[in-house]
Amino acid sequence: MVDFDLRSANARLRAGHPLIQCITNTVVQQFSANVLLAVGASPAMLDHEADAGQFAGIANGVLINFGTASNHQLLAADAAIDVAAAAGKPWVLDPVSVGAVDFRTSRIRRAAADRPTAIRGNASEIAALAGVGLGGRGVDSTDEVDAVLPAAVQLARTTGAIVAVSGPRDAVVAHIDGTDHVAHIDGGHEFMPLVIGTGCSLGAVTVAYLAGAGKGTAGPDSDVSVPAAAASADPGATASARFEAVVAAHAHFAVAGELAAAGAQGPGSYSVSFLDALHAVTGDQLAQARVSHRTLTADEGVQA
Amino acid sequence: MVDFDLRSANARLRAGHPLIQCITNTVVQQFSANVLLAVGASPAMLDHEADAGQFAGIANGVLINFGTASNHQLLAADAAIDVAAAAGKPWVLDPVSVGAVDFRTSRIRRAAADRPTAIRGNASEIAALAGVGLGGRGVDSTDEVDAVLPAAVQLARTTGAIVAVSGPRDAVVAHIDGTDHVAHIDGGHEFMPLVIGTGCSLGAVTVAYLAGAGKGTAGPDSDVSVPAAAASADPGATASARFEAVVAAHAHFAVAGELAAAGAQGPGSYSVSFLDALHAVTGDQLAQARVSHRTLTADEGVQA
Amino acid sequence: MVDFDLRSANARLRAGHPLIQCITNTVVQQFSANVLLAVGASPAMLDHEADAGQFAGIANGVLINFGTASNHQLLAADAAIDVAAAAGKPWVLDPVSVGAVDFRTSRIRRAAADRPTAIRGNASEIAALAGVGLGGRGVDSTDEVDAVLPAAVQLARTTGAIVAVSGPRDAVVAHIDGTDHVAHIDGGHEFMPLVIGTGCSLGAVTVAYLAGAGKGTAGPDSDVSVPAAAASADPGATASARFEAVVAAHAHFAVAGELAAAGAQGPGSYSVSFLDALHAVTGDQLAQARVSHRTLTADEGVQA
Repeated sequence: MVDFDLRSANARLRAGHPLIQCITNTVVQQFSANVLLAVGASPAMLDHEADAGQFAGIANGVLINFGTASNHQLLAADAAIDVAAAAGKPWVLDPVSVGAVDFRTSRIRRAAADRPTAIRGNASEIAALAGVGLGGRGVDSTDEVDAVLPAAVQLARTTGAIVAVSGPRDAVVAHIDGTDHVAHIDGGHEFMPLVIGTGCSLGAVTVAYLAGAGKGTAGPDSDVSVPAAAASADPGATASARFEAVVAAHAHFAVAGELAAAGAQGPGSYSVSFLDALHAVTGDQLAQARVSHRTLTADEGVQA
Repeated sequence: MVDFDLRSANARLRAGHPLIQCITNTVVQQFSANVLLAVGASPAMLDHEADAGQFAGIANGVLINFGTASNHQLLAADAAIDVAAAAGKPWVLDPVSVGAVDFRTSRIRRAAADRPTAIRGNASEIAALAGVGLGGRGVDSTDEVDAVLPAAVQLARTTGAIVAVSGPRDAVVAHIDGTDHVAHIDGGHEFMPLVIGTGCSLGAVTVAYLAGAGKGTAGPDSDVSVPAAAASADPGATASARFEAVVAAHAHFAVAGELAAAGAQGPGSYSVSFLDALHAVTGDQLAQARVSHRTLTADEGVQA
Repeated sequence: MVDFDLRSANARLRAGHPLIQCITNTVVQQFSANVLLAVGASPAMLDHEADAGQFAGIANGVLINFGTASNHQLLAADAAIDVAAAAGKPWVLDPVSVGAVDFRTSRIRRAAADRPTAIRGNASEIAALAGVGLGGRGVDSTDEVDAVLPAAVQLARTTGAIVAVSGPRDAVVAHIDGTDHVAHIDGGHEFMPLVIGTGCSLGAVTVAYLAGAGKGTAGPDSDVSVPAAAASADPGATASARFEAVVAAHAHFAVAGELAAAGAQGPGSYSVSFLDALHAVTGDQLAQARVSHRTLTADEGVQA
C-alpha cells in the first residue's frame, strides 16, 4: 500500500522553490504564473522554439499544454520534452481539448507517446486520450470522473504516466509494480470551474510537486541551499513518490479551493481568494486533506 | 416596432450553455473566458489555422477580434468564418483599432465584407470601419456614441450586421425590412473603461446571446438536454431576434457594470466585482435594464 | 545635482494620457494594460510585424519585452524601435531572462545596442546584460540590487540609457554630463514579487512617464487639449528629465505597493489592491515617496 506524506511533499516544494517551465496556452499564462508563485514555485513561460530546449535544461520541470498552441509552441514543446526526458526531469501533459479537433488531437497523442511523468485532464479529455468517449469541447468536461477510471487505468499502463482526472472529485491513478492504484481527493468549490485556468494551473502545480519527488523529507530549511538545477526530480524517483507528488498537488488545490469559498461572492472574488488560499495553505491543512486511496481490482482496471 | 424580451434571451443563454470560439487578442483572453463563464457560456480560444475551421463546426458561435492577431490567427479566422457562415452560426466582428494602421485595417475590412452577424466596437472604430472619422488609437475611443449613429446605420445597411457602438451610453443599430432601428442602453460605470477587456469581452457575450437567438422561449430546463451542437442559432433567426440578442448582451453588461460599483474602490476591485455581478444578474434585473429603442427617420440614417 | 519634481511628472502623465505601445510577453499583457490604464495612460499591444512600425509612429512611446517573444514579436520590435528612435520617442527595454538562454540573450543584446531610452530589469538581468553575473532564471532575481550598481553604471555609460534595477529597494542609475547618478526608491511589499507582471508592467509605466519628460510643468488641465501625437517626449528632453521620469515611475509603484498592503490577505487580493492603489496615488503622495539620490564616486562606478 502507498502512504502519502503530503506535509513533507509541501515542505519540499516550498524549500526547493522549483523553476517550472510552462509551454501553455495564452489564456491561462497569467493565472498559472500567479498560482505557481502562490505555492512557492517560480514560473517561466519561455516558448520560443530556439530557446525552449535549452531552458528545459535549467528548469526543474516542464508543463506542456496545447490549449492555444501555434507552431512555435509545438516545436518548443518537442524540444523541451526531449531535454526533460533525457535529464530525467518531470514533465506533465495537459491534453486540453484532445479529441475535439484532428490536428490538435494528433499533436497531443504524439506528446502522450513521449512518456510524460504525469497526465492531467478532465474526464472527457482522459477518455478521449485513452481512445474512448467523445472528447472534450474546450476545457469543459461532460463526463464524470469515476466513469473514466478504466480509461485512466489503461492510460497509466500504456504511457507509464501517473494519470489525474479533475472534477468535483479528483481521481489520480498510478500503475505501480503491476498493481493499479487510485486516490480520490475531495474539495474545491462550485465556483472553481467558473474560473478559467484552475485546471490548467493544476497541471503546472503538479510539475512543481513532482520536482521534489524522491527527495528525502525536508527538515526546516534543509533544501534552501540546494542550487536550483539540483532540485530536479531524481530520475530514479520511485513511482510511489511520483504518485504522492501528483496527489499532493491535487490536495493543495482541493484544500485551497474550499478555503477560498469564505468571502467569495461570485467567480471573480473566488478567483482572488483562491490565490490567497493557495499561498496560505499549511502543511497541517494538507495533512488533513480529504484524500483516500486504494488498489483497484483487475475488474476495475479493465474497460467494460 | 421591435419588442425586447431580455428575460427570455437570458434564460436561453443559461439553458443553452453555448460553446463560444474566440479568436481574440491575447491581452483579453483570460478576462473574456472568465466573462463567458460568468454569464453561463463556455469559452474556447482555439486559434490554430489547422484547427479553427473544424472547431467552428462544433462551436455555437465565433468571435473575431484582431487586437494582437499574428498570422496564424488571421488564417484561423478566415477558416472559422467560412465554416460558421456556411452553417448559419452567428459570428461577431470586433474591429479593434481599425483605421489606426494599414495592415490591420485591411484585414478587418476583409472580415467585415464576409457579412458578420454583428459588429461591436467603440465609436472611433465604427466610424473608421464605415469610412468616416479618424479611427481609434488602440482600444481607446475618442468619438462619441451618438455622433457615429449615421456611420453605424450605414454599416448595418451595407454589411447586414447588427452594429453595436460601445460607450458611456451604448447604441445598437439594426436595419430590418428596410427600416433602421436603434436601441440605447444606459448603465455601466466610470471604472469600466479602466478595465482592459470590458469591450472585447462584450463582443464574446454578444456571440453567446446570438447563439440562442431565434429559439423558442426557454421554460425551466427546457434546453438542458439539447446537444451543444444543436444549440446554434437557427440560420433563419430573424433580424429582430438577432437585434434582441445583441441588445440583451449589452444590457447584461450595463446592469452588471452598475451593480459592480458597490464596494469597488478602484479599477482593480471593480474588475473583480464586475465578474461577480455578471454571474449574479437575474432575468428580473435584465428585464428592468435601462433600454430604449426607436426607429430612425431617413434623415437620421444618412450621414451629413 | 539633479532635483526630482515627482508631482509634476505625475501631472504631466495624467494630463498627457500617453498612448503606450507594448510589445511584451503574453503572460503579463492583461496586467500591464490594466496598470497603464490605472496610472492614466492608454495601452496598445499591437505586435504584428506588418503594423508595429507604423503604430510606433502614432504611439507616444514603446516598451520592448521579449518574455515570450515569438518571431513576429521579434520582427515587430525591430520595426517599432527603428521608428521610435528616428522620431525621438522614448522606448524602454526590459531584458527579461537575459543570460538564461542563448537565442533570447542574443536578441536582447541586439535591442540593447539600439540605444534604448531606459533599461529596466531585476538585479540578475542587469548584471547579465552588462556581462557580469550568472543571469536570471525567468523573472526571478537572485542577486541584490546594490551588488549590481557597478554593472548598472557600466550599462548606463555604454548604452546611454537610464538603467533601473528593481528589487526590494529599487535603484535607478543615470550617466549625465560625465557624472554617474543613482537614485534609490524604497517601498513596495513582500507580496509584490508574488504577483506576476509587477516588474514587467513597471517597464510599461516607465515608458508612460518618459512620454512626458522634457515638457513644461503642467498646470491644471494645461495639456488636456494637446493631441495625443504631440504628447511624445521632446527628442531634446534632457538626460535629467529622463532620469526624473524613470524615478517617478518607480516611486509611483513603490508608493502604490505600500498602500496596497492594507487589506491584502495574500498575493491574489494584493494584486487587486495594487491596481486600485496605482489609480488612487496622488501627486502629494508621490512627492513624499521615499526617494534619495546622490552622485557616485569614480570608485563606485567601476566594477571590482
